[in-house]
Amino acid sequence: MRRAIYPGSFDPVTNGHLDIIGRCCHLFDEIVVAVVVNPEKKPLFTVEERQSILRDALGGIETGTCRVSVDSFGGLLMKYAVEQKADAIVRGIRAISDYEYELQMALMNRRLEPRVETVFMMSAEAYSYVSSRLVKEVYQLGGSVRGLVPELVEARMSEKLGRTSHQ
Amino acid sequence: MRRAIYPGSFDPVTNGHLDIIGRCCHLFDEIVVAVVVNPEKKPLFTVEERQSILRDALGGIETGTCRVSVDSFGGLLMKYAVEQKADAIVRGIRAISDYEYELQMALMNRRLEPRVETVFMMSAEAYSYVSSRLVKEVYQLGGSVRGLVPELVEARMSEKLGRTSHQ
Amino acid sequence: MRRAIYPGSFDPVTNGHLDIIGRCCHLFDEIVVAVVVNPEKKPLFTVEERQSILRDALGGIETGTCRVSVDSFGGLLMKYAVEQKADAIVRGIRAISDYEYELQMALMNRRLEPRVETVFMMSAEAYSYVSSRLVKEVYQLGGSVRGLVPELVEARMSEKLGRTSHQ
Amino acid sequence: MRRAIYPGSFDPVTNGHLDIIGRCCHLFDEIVVAVVVNPEKKPLFTVEERQSILRDALGGIETGTCRVSVDSFGGLLMKYAVEQKADAIVRGIRAISDYEYELQMALMNRRLEPRVETVFMMSAEAYSYVSSRLVKEVYQLGGSVRGLVPELVEARMSEKLGRTSHQ
Amino acid sequence: MRRAIYPGSFDPVTNGHLDIIGRCCHLFDEIVVAVVVNPEKKPLFTVEERQSILRDALGGIETGTCRVSVDSFGGLLMKYAVEQKADAIVRGIRAISDYEYELQMALMNRRLEPRVETVFMMSAEAYSYVSSRLVKEVYQLGGSVRGLVPELVEARMSEKLGRTSHQ
Amino acid sequence: MRRAIYPGSFDPVTNGHLDIIGRCCHLFDEIVVAVVVNPEKKPLFTVEERQSILRDALGGIETGTCRVSVDSFGGLLMKYAVEQKADAIVRGIRAISDYEYELQMALMNRRLEPRVETVFMMSAEAYSYVSSRLVKEVYQLGGSVRGLVPELVEARMSEKLGRTSHQ
Repeated sequence: MRRAIYPGSFDPVTNGHLDIIGRCCHLFDEIVVAVVVNPEKKPLFTVEERQSILRDALGGIETGTCRVSVDSFGGLLMKYAVEQKADAIVRGIRAISDYEYELQMALMNRRLEPRVETVFMMSAEAYSYVSSRLVKEVYQLGGSVRGLVPELVEARMSEKLGRTSHQ
Repeated sequence: MRRAIYPGSFDPVTNGHLDIIGRCCHLFDEIVVAVVVNPEKKPLFTVEERQSILRDALGGIETGTCRVSVDSFGGLLMKYAVEQKADAIVRGIRAISDYEYELQMALMNRRLEPRVETVFMMSAEAYSYVSSRLVKEVYQLGGSVRGLVPELVEARMSEKLGRTSHQ
Repeated sequence: MRRAIYPGSFDPVTNGHLDIIGRCCHLFDEIVVAVVVNPEKKPLFTVEERQSILRDALGGIETGTCRVSVDSFGGLLMKYAVEQKADAIVRGIRAISDYEYELQMALMNRRLEPRVETVFMMSAEAYSYVSSRLVKEVYQLGGSVRGLVPELVEARMSEKLGRTSHQ
Repeated sequence: MRRAIYPGSFDPVTNGHLDIIGRCCHLFDEIVVAVVVNPEKKPLFTVEERQSILRDALGGIETGTCRVSVDSFGGLLMKYAVEQKADAIVRGIRAISDYEYELQMALMNRRLEPRVETVFMMSAEAYSYVSSRLVKEVYQLGGSVRGLVPELVEARMSEKLGRTSHQ
Repeated sequence: MRRAIYPGSFDPVTNGHLDIIGRCCHLFDEIVVAVVVNPEKKPLFTVEERQSILRDALGGIETGTCRVSVDSFGGLLMKYAVEQKADAIVRGIRAISDYEYELQMALMNRRLEPRVETVFMMSAEAYSYVSSRLVKEVYQLGGSVRGLVPELVEARMSEKLGRTSHQ
Repeated sequence: MRRAIYPGSFDPVTNGHLDIIGRCCHLFDEIVVAVVVNPEKKPLFTVEERQSILRDALGGIETGTCRVSVDSFGGLLMKYAVEQKADAIVRGIRAISDYEYELQMALMNRRLEPRVETVFMMSAEAYSYVSSRLVKEVYQLGGSVRGLVPELVEARMSEKLGRTSHQ
């Protein structure tokens, strides 16, 4: 039985994230989608809201026999990974700048805890330009984010930011 | 008749920007140089000042039969582009990090409005290291920016920041 | 009236190339798709075959009021561009390695002929991994290239390489 | 039970490859190390020799409860992967140029066979500059490759290339 | 006699920095390690503390016949370099993103002062992921930074941040 | 007294190479420009011709008190560097792809011989697109290479390739 942690801000979860989670389900028996608690950032959604949105959104994807759960953590990822008895950290990769940063973090994390591997998975090319930050920016400027996030996320953004999405 | 929008912060316009505008004049009948209004950034010059500086600086370059105008906009670039009946968005590219970000934005913009193309043009190698941010930083530390911005921009920076440029 | 040259090996043309040509049609009045004659390379299709395939494939895309023609040339691209009275060279860009090489060539070409601009256009994310080389490799190993090239290109590869495509 | 394929030329296997295989053993129940048969390349070792060297070298690493076997294949990787009932293709990544190429191949492979995931694993920083090609080049120029390949690989290179390694 | 300046924030100095300084000692007769005074950043250690830590840490490395001193400066690096009669600026490079930024700065600096060369040196692969920012982040989250910074730096971080390092 | 080796193919030397050599003269007391003998490549000029062209071209640059000599070597660079009692290997860097490869080689070279440092210097932005390969390609297609190589190199290319340069 193998368990992976898929950590992230998920502020909010995008279809790119869900695509990665669906792919992970073919490779692991359990996946913990873990919202990172970072007191220095000002998120759009609280940690609780992000977890609740994730749970709802996970209902819309195919997870097969894989058990997917949602959690949150503060502090060092690798301490959390060991507590969770995780075999792997999963990271989605897109662009070069992502990749550089991800590589640096993965080397540091391996040094902190060599028993947990980092594996990189590639998001579908359709989501290659989709990030939570860009989704929020487009939405706040009045653009449509349909197809980039699940409809329920769009509804939650509409509640939070007080406008009806259109286009 | 083809119209392009060249959007940017232009805080202030550099010789690299003017080089791109001059090149665009060979390819389009009309170019709208559009200052992005971004309430979250703290610019050196106001939107009005940036437009006025742009208009003055455009007097110094060869535009042939191309009509170049200066404007500003807030909100979504692609909405503005459609309102302006633009055929293309022009972006100057230099380094890799630029390129990654530009590609992500262009893919998002194409999804928001497939009728408007993004075209990338290359600034001259002489301006490959010139950015508004670096120009301001060097000027504020007392360095010369001659040759990197038009003289009138240097004069406006001197008024604003209260020192006489030298070297 | 503005004319662009879209140079390449086109051995064979892919849907990524056709996507770029279709986009160019919004920006130029005439496009010359120009097959590069390179005696040092061993192509799958002859220059004549590549031109004939291109002409057939162009029948399948929307070109609007833009006049698209097919030609071939040897020697220096910028000499050909001047002979053709072209205003621009169009290059499609995808990955970083592409970009580096393209930038180097564009700077050299500008030096050889400053009157002709190079503009870069971005292929759709769906074609971000499609190259003539990879299409040939996959086909020769028995894989399907449906959706990556027009059907008529698949038929021509089948004739040339003597196998029926399947999947 | 999950099975991964780790494909490559392995001409010859390096400590970087063995590092990746050891890491994979934490994540999969079975790993097939698969030598790619490529008639167009001129390898130092035959396919049979490379398989035999791999089998010997695998004796020197910790594989836990994971079953690691050695095989070879020609033709399309994804056909082989389906025949082998593999859940994943594993690729080691190092530099940017690697990454670009790997991403392109992985997107093509996903299109050819969406049921098989590609996962990327990072080789240890100590092996970040080690490739089979560079190992062969250094050895042939008379340099030491100790620490970059297992000792038995050094011995096999010595037999093949007729010199005693030193330093 | 040749003198180099090695500028940086050094907040705090890492083993990666010390590795670069040690390497520079083979190439220059004098090295000035210069702490950049940047009023806009909020450092962990004051400029004075950073200089004092640097002096202590330099005691632990091999400098041969090279004279290494510690200093600080505000304003334009190239003015400082000329005042110091420096022949070169030394910069350590690691990742791509580093490299892009470094190249831009170096081209600007050459324009500001062509008499001072910028030379890039490569930190050891063991330190390829070590930055002051990441060291502080890991330490503050409770992780061990042993081996990434000298022990005396760990002690100073412990005093400053009020926890005992462990692991 | 410090000595550096600047290795390369120099087939032929370009103004970019000469720019790097001139810069090195500020940092080292002796520079050995070393033509790499590579029996697997088919150069335009023989090793002897390349050395002779280099000696002529070096007459045209400012070398100050630095002693610059020309040599050639086969086999392992680091063996040659030790024989030559060199303190450093100098490499010019331009693009990303260069950089990746250069970094890999430098890490390997450090492992082979930790006593010799690799330092990277940046060629002027005016030469950022100039490589021996591109110079030859442009010349052979009939383009002008004036300003990219010294005039004497142009003359030697004309003798070798039997055409008069023009433009």
